[in-house]
Amino acid sequence: MTFQQKLDLIEKNNNSLLCVGLDSNIHKLPKQFLKKDYPQFSFNKWIIEQTNDLVCAYKPNTAFYEARGADGIMELRMTCHYLKKHYPEIPIILDAKRGDIGSTNEGYVEFAYEYLGVDAITLHPYLGKEALQPLLDLKEKGCIILCRTSNPGSGEFQDIHDLYKKVAQSVSQNWNRNKNCMLVVGATYPKELAEIRKIVGDMTLLIPGIGAQGGNVEKTVGAGLNTKNAGMMINSSRGIIFAKNPRNEATKLKEEINRYRNQF
Amino acid sequence: MTFQQKLDLIEKNNNSLLCVGLDSNIHKLPKQFLKKDYPQFSFNKWIIEQTNDLVCAYKPNTAFYEARGADGIMELRMTCHYLKKHYPEIPIILDAKRGDIGSTNEGYVEFAYEYLGVDAITLHPYLGKEALQPLLDLKEKGCIILCRTSNPGSGEFQDIHDLYKKVAQSVSQNWNRNKNCMLVVGATYPKELAEIRKIVGDMTLLIPGIGAQGGNVEKTVGAGLNTKNAGMMINSSRGIIFAKNPRNEATKLKEEINRYRNQF
Repeated sequence: MTFQQKLDLIEKNNNSLLCVGLDSNIHKLPKQFLKKDYPQFSFNKWIIEQTNDLVCAYKPNTAFYEARGADGIMELRMTCHYLKKHYPEIPIILDAKRGDIGSTNEGYVEFAYEYLGVDAITLHPYLGKEALQPLLDLKEKGCIILCRTSNPGSGEFQDIHDLYKKVAQSVSQNWNRNKNCMLVVGATYPKELAEIRKIVGDMTLLIPGIGAQGGNVEKTVGAGLNTKNAGMMINSSRGIIFAKNPRNEATKLKEEINRYRNQF
Repeated sequence: MTFQQKLDLIEKNNNSLLCVGLDSNIHKLPKQFLKKDYPQFSFNKWIIEQTNDLVCAYKPNTAFYEARGADGIMELRMTCHYLKKHYPEIPIILDAKRGDIGSTNEGYVEFAYEYLGVDAITLHPYLGKEALQPLLDLKEKGCIILCRTSNPGSGEFQDIHDLYKKVAQSVSQNWNRNKNCMLVVGATYPKELAEIRKIVGDMTLLIPGIGAQGGNVEKTVGAGLNTKNAGMMINSSRGIIFAKNPRNEATKLKEEINRYRNQF
């Protein structure tokens, strides 16, 4: 089963476009988890137990695990293996934002798909298609390319001669032979999101920037839905996992997304 | 002491612009190292013992360590700590090609500078200066930004309206307040290297692509030297570390670089 097929299935079964970001920053974990042998894994397990019927995907960001070195990488692996064992129907996106020359990217293939066993990875477009070929060649695995990022200063290069639109065009027209490409587009840029949607047809978009970063759910859903009333994974990380009641926050956001989905 | 100061000193003392890439791919290690408890670290130690008087820097690429998960990350750390203990005068560049939103990049700061203790890191420019601020703020640590990469397909986006020149302009004019920025420019693009040298003044450039990737030493030195007859770290990885006699290959390349340096 491909990443896209897995995603389509869980989106239907959980009736959800919500992706929960497992950005389990050790400095922000609730105190009770810091005492555990595997604090990040224990915390993730707790989040997963509360949210697995509400999500279409989980997205751990590697930076928060690498920050702890080998220990963090091991707990990232424990998290991925726990998900694969207990919730094999939920896809895992490794938010790693990698991108090197071709022969080096083979190392990232091993990390993501052999060592961790995830379903998709986020990638920088800067080196072009040729460099990312070892990842694009894996038909069952998703390549989620940065297009318009959610940060306030993302326009510095992405706006020069509409570079972000050229990335959207290249990826949708030339990179996607295996139908395994998606794009990252920040919820903080609804106008650009609408433009990208026009360029890429029904391609699925990963949308960070809701919650802590200030993205608006109504505008995001309005701008980002595809012709099948889906085509988005709307991510929230800090806003859910560090909330007093993560299940409540996840439920609220999932339902808010669906409310606007039905409206448009 | 800043990364640049450390680099200037070792360039003089070793009379070398050669950076050796510790791309210690486990699948390519000589057999005798595979039997060891720490194969990548043991191999790196062997390479370092043979080349430490010939280099201006070492550059491990994270992909080859991440490929082995937590074990590889541990051996990457052992390598960095070994260098810091025995050869504290040689700077270490973490070739990680990272780049995320600001709050997430703090995780990479911890990985590179607390956990590993390296001197510099390579970074993607796509998210802009604002996102990389946590790294740019560290005055003693080097930020080496991808500008013109060495891979055959690097022009796909980098050539659109001369994006690579805009990256060179932004980094040299606006990002470099702490004088800790450098650029990555591939030896496989000598014309672009000469153009970038004009834009950035005496800024140091990290230059991969010599050897296995086909870059030419004479053209590279001719195009890349700054007004102080330096300003380059010319990297070779596979061509040196997997040679029958790594010391011989490193010596040859160091001397070839110096020959052209004296000529121009």
